[in-house]
Amino acid sequence: MTVLLETFEIKTKAYYEAKDITPQVQNALERSGLKNGIVNVHVAGSTGAISTVEYEPGLVQHDIEDFLEKIIPYKENYAHHKTWHDYNGAGHLRSFLIKTSQTFPFHDKKLILGSWQNIIFIENDEKPRHRTIYVTLIGE
Amino acid sequence: MTVLLETFEIKTKAYYEAKDITPQVQNALERSGLKNGIVNVHVAGSTGAISTVEYEPGLVQHDIEDFLEKIIPYKENYAHHKTWHDYNGAGHLRSFLIKTSQTFPFHDKKLILGSWQNIIFIENDEKPRHRTIYVTLIGE
Amino acid sequence: MTVLLETFEIKTKAYYEAKDITPQVQNALERSGLKNGIVNVHVAGSTGAISTVEYEPGLVQHDIEDFLEKIIPYKENYAHHKTWHDYNGAGHLRSFLIKTSQTFPFHDKKLILGSWQNIIFIENDEKPRHRTIYVTLIGE
Repeated sequence: MTVLLETFEIKTKAYYEAKDITPQVQNALERSGLKNGIVNVHVAGSTGAISTVEYEPGLVQHDIEDFLEKIIPYKENYAHHKTWHDYNGAGHLRSFLIKTSQTFPFHDKKLILGSWQNIIFIENDEKPRHRTIYVTLIGE
Repeated sequence: MTVLLETFEIKTKAYYEAKDITPQVQNALERSGLKNGIVNVHVAGSTGAISTVEYEPGLVQHDIEDFLEKIIPYKENYAHHKTWHDYNGAGHLRSFLIKTSQTFPFHDKKLILGSWQNIIFIENDEKPRHRTIYVTLIGE
Repeated sequence: MTVLLETFEIKTKAYYEAKDITPQVQNALERSGLKNGIVNVHVAGSTGAISTVEYEPGLVQHDIEDFLEKIIPYKENYAHHKTWHDYNGAGHLRSFLIKTSQTFPFHDKKLILGSWQNIIFIENDEKPRHRTIYVTLIGE
């Protein structure tokens, strides 16, 4: 049993972007030499998020953003705005809700995911960001 | 320290079903012989989800479904429908939101859960499904 | 590689409270002597929840509570209320949604979190509670 930490960088667009990060996580797994275990995928920050989805344009470019905008609209007077004089209230709430990490199993050097299931990073910040994603592999 | 992967199968109903899978996860833990560690419970697929709830009929047969239907209604024109000509937009959004996995601690061969807390699988697909649940145990 | 379980206790207020538990998790990590790995933070119970947020008064005392009250209001006739004759339907739904655990990476004896990212416990119960938080560290 061993633990290995890998990181990779992504650039994102402001307000909303869903980026497929499955290849980078799978690459980290292959480089690790580990066969079986779990991998924690995490963003350090309070306006990013990690989840999974079928990575097709309808969901990724429309439905997820529409849904987030419906339940946590950007243009609302959040108390958070008064603290920092920014407009990131919705961004923080979205990350709080979706969460900044998820843990996945892997077997025989492959992530266990559905055929149409991709690991995605969601940008919720009002500014474009340069993000570091932390991939922690535990296994043997 | 060791890592073990177990799987079990469940059959689900279309649109919404919450199934108590605590006994299967506890059985996998008992078969593993492990005493202390963590267990990752995961569904491979983008229309299933894993969480916990008190497994009583009011919540499981009414409140959760009503809540999901309120924030992510099935009968809406999701962009996803145009891609595949199916009606699974809500199913994908619900799984994206609730997520397809959760990781739990165990101690002395027992899952650490509240007295009224059960691990549940949520079906969000528009079709009844045959699901494989992946249980990855790490511990000693 | 080793696994260690630590616990700590917190007291919470009824209906909604977000408590910063980062110091307790970091303390458990320091006491463990582990350098690199992952830590699972979990509440045993079906009306508590774990997530992360920038711990500033606007978000913590207003925006999160307003958001939860908007999508899962306390004063609604949940089916759960008929089962137990309590008013905890919203509390259960909120915990089901946010979830009762999250897993974080650590490196060089430090939690990997953003500069403004804190681990929080959310109380969703209609009664003030005494909560035990389970911190499971796996690493080397």
